[in-house]
Amino acid sequence: MSGIKPKTWLLLQRTVRFGDTDAAGVMHFANLFRWSHEAWEESLYSFGLSAHEIFPGCSDKVGDPGVALPVLHAHADFWSPLKAGEVLFVELIPHRLDKDSFQVKSRFKRDQVEVAQSLIHHVSINAKTRQRCALPRCIDLWLEASSATINS
Amino acid sequence: MSGIKPKTWLLLQRTVRFGDTDAAGVMHFANLFRWSHEAWEESLYSFGLSAHEIFPGCSDKVGDPGVALPVLHAHADFWSPLKAGEVLFVELIPHRLDKDSFQVKSRFKRDQVEVAQSLIHHVSINAKTRQRCALPRCIDLWLEASSATINS
Amino acid sequence: MSGIKPKTWLLLQRTVRFGDTDAAGVMHFANLFRWSHEAWEESLYSFGLSAHEIFPGCSDKVGDPGVALPVLHAHADFWSPLKAGEVLFVELIPHRLDKDSFQVKSRFKRDQVEVAQSLIHHVSINAKTRQRCALPRCIDLWLEASSATINS
Amino acid sequence: MSGIKPKTWLLLQRTVRFGDTDAAGVMHFANLFRWSHEAWEESLYSFGLSAHEIFPGCSDKVGDPGVALPVLHAHADFWSPLKAGEVLFVELIPHRLDKDSFQVKSRFKRDQVEVAQSLIHHVSINAKTRQRCALPRCIDLWLEASSATINS
Repeated sequence: MSGIKPKTWLLLQRTVRFGDTDAAGVMHFANLFRWSHEAWEESLYSFGLSAHEIFPGCSDKVGDPGVALPVLHAHADFWSPLKAGEVLFVELIPHRLDKDSFQVKSRFKRDQVEVAQSLIHHVSINAKTRQRCALPRCIDLWLEASSATINS
Repeated sequence: MSGIKPKTWLLLQRTVRFGDTDAAGVMHFANLFRWSHEAWEESLYSFGLSAHEIFPGCSDKVGDPGVALPVLHAHADFWSPLKAGEVLFVELIPHRLDKDSFQVKSRFKRDQVEVAQSLIHHVSINAKTRQRCALPRCIDLWLEASSATINS
Repeated sequence: MSGIKPKTWLLLQRTVRFGDTDAAGVMHFANLFRWSHEAWEESLYSFGLSAHEIFPGCSDKVGDPGVALPVLHAHADFWSPLKAGEVLFVELIPHRLDKDSFQVKSRFKRDQVEVAQSLIHHVSINAKTRQRCALPRCIDLWLEASSATINS
Repeated sequence: MSGIKPKTWLLLQRTVRFGDTDAAGVMHFANLFRWSHEAWEESLYSFGLSAHEIFPGCSDKVGDPGVALPVLHAHADFWSPLKAGEVLFVELIPHRLDKDSFQVKSRFKRDQVEVAQSLIHHVSINAKTRQRCALPRCIDLWLEASSATINS
């Protein structure tokens, strides 16, 4: 349905920093992957989750999630050079793939025009055995609330 | 004088990202220098300047500043481990050293407690000849307005 | 044909550094893209090219190549966690796509086992007009010499 | 005594990568700190140590060192712009400060000329309690063998 706006926790902003550029004068491509992961982190916090529920090593070992969410695949397309100081809007489109994996698409826009896009595919594993396991409940909640946006 | 608050453009915020940490579970030290430079950039924009006035290679060559502000010296002290998801407040304390150089101190606080500090010393050079030159007028304005805060 | 070995300039090595890991204890995924680009750079130098023939901004403006090789697309697959101190072997598989574009696949192995793979797709543009243009002659030579390896 | 050469594990090499530069066309300053830490890691391996003896999170928890070596202070001086493709020689000068801390100075040279210098000051802590503790035996050995070079 047209007119449906994405939920606020899926809309983020990012300024290109001088240190993100290279001698060609524009953003060095690999930084887009870092940005995409950081936008995802910010979205989780904005949704109400906290780091120690999600990321291993972020608590003082008490209540460490025990689950890691490593990246299995990532890709990105680059349609325009990005210069230091430019403000980008980032829209996240999360999608549950299975009971133990999900992907997050990030669409980067400058002045309404899409300039780059990435996709990161995470799986859920037991941080000790590294065997696949069900997604943490908090990630499930974020995925459900996020995709409701698109389907409604 | 007590009770003087720093100007708004000198007060910034930063969240520790998962990718900023290393296998010891806390922020990898070198990222503090990147954060400090980015806080300075953000301060300049917040003050009202734009990137193409300051950074070489950020304009489409028309009106390129012609001046670069390389780092001559940098140092940092680390007083506490920083974990992913933690929110830090950054206070910048800029100081003009000479007609062609200045330094910016960054104080990082978490819950009112100082956790790290850095200092970056920049010089102003002609981007082509790499000879020292007077600071760009816009940097001068930012320095004057910023130090007025401290002196008043 | 079996038994054909890749040319020496396509076989590189990389040690996982402590700063490449995150709090999950293994390499943060985005670094693989940085590594892949660096392996490509190293291959060009090992083949006999020098940076100022290839990368904008690397010469003192005299003889600047005038051509940039931005990334249009990149992707990677991750099959195994990588820990600090591990030595990886990187095999590059370059492929000319067109007269103005090429891709480089990087296969990362640890103890003969493939642990990750990436692909970077570059296009050749005039650094000023940003219009597509023929690949620089030196890149052409590297591509020809490199693919001869595979076809012979 | 003149004519004493530094031990081989203290002499390293580094090529400036394209992604290490920024839009000013030269190495972005913060990367020197990353390089310095990586040169130190390489020196330890070259001396004969392995990552899981030194860095937390690098083993499969069996035999994890239990000790972390966080950075307390770091500083650097930059005397010359560094361009992509340039080869630098790095000389490490380690120095034990106390039974629980040491520093490593890194001197970066290009064509015999010193272009930058850094210093990193580490302390030894129990990775769980974060209380200071004696340096790991393997770091002690490396420090002794390294400083013998200078004193003999």
